[in-house]
Amino acid sequence: MNKFGLFGKITAHTGQRDALVKVLLEAATLMETVEGCELYIVNILDSEPDAVWVTEIWRDESDHKASLMMGETKAIIQRGRPLIAGFGEQTKLCPVGGKGFLEA
Amino acid sequence: MNKFGLFGKITAHTGQRDALVKVLLEAATLMETVEGCELYIVNILDSEPDAVWVTEIWRDESDHKASLMMGETKAIIQRGRPLIAGFGEQTKLCPVGGKGFLEA
Repeated sequence: MNKFGLFGKITAHTGQRDALVKVLLEAATLMETVEGCELYIVNILDSEPDAVWVTEIWRDESDHKASLMMGETKAIIQRGRPLIAGFGEQTKLCPVGGKGFLEA
Repeated sequence: MNKFGLFGKITAHTGQRDALVKVLLEAATLMETVEGCELYIVNILDSEPDAVWVTEIWRDESDHKASLMMGETKAIIQRGRPLIAGFGEQTKLCPVGGKGFLEA
C-alpha cells in the first residue's frame, strides 16, 4: 500500500489567516481520531500574511478520501470556506521513508 | 522559539531518481541522531519520474543550519550532488501545530 501525501497552499481573505489557522487546527485535532491520518501540520510564513500551508501524510489515498466524507470534516470545511480567498498549488506525493515516517 | 519547516523539490538526472532517494534516505537516517530535526520525509510521484520532494520540520532554523555544518551531512550532499539535475521551488514555513507536531 502506498502512502499518500499532500502539500497545499490556502490563501485567506485579508486579516482572516489566524481565523483560518484556528479552523485548520480544529481539523488537525479531529484527525487525531482518524487512524489513517499520520501527519496533518498547519504552517504559516511571516512574509505571506494571508497564506496557510497544510502538510499531510496518509496511510493511503482511500483513508484521505474517507476522511472527507466524515460529517465533522464537512462541518469544519463549511466553517473554513468563508475565510478562504483561494487555493494555491497543491502537490500530491508518495512519501517513501524518512524520519517521522510511520512504517506500515 | 518558532519551528522551521521546508518543502522542496529536487530533480534528478534521468534515471537517477531512485539513487537520489537512497541518498536522501541516508540523510534521513542521519537526522535520526539530530535532535533538532523533527521530521525529514522523502517523497516521490509516479507522474514525475525524475522528481523527489523533501518535507522537513525543525525545532528552529538554527538547528537546520547547524545540521548543514555536520561532516556527515556534507559527505551525503557530496554523494547526492552528481545525481541532481536541478532544484525546484523550496518553500520555507513556520509550522504552528497539528497532528504530528511536536510541542516544544
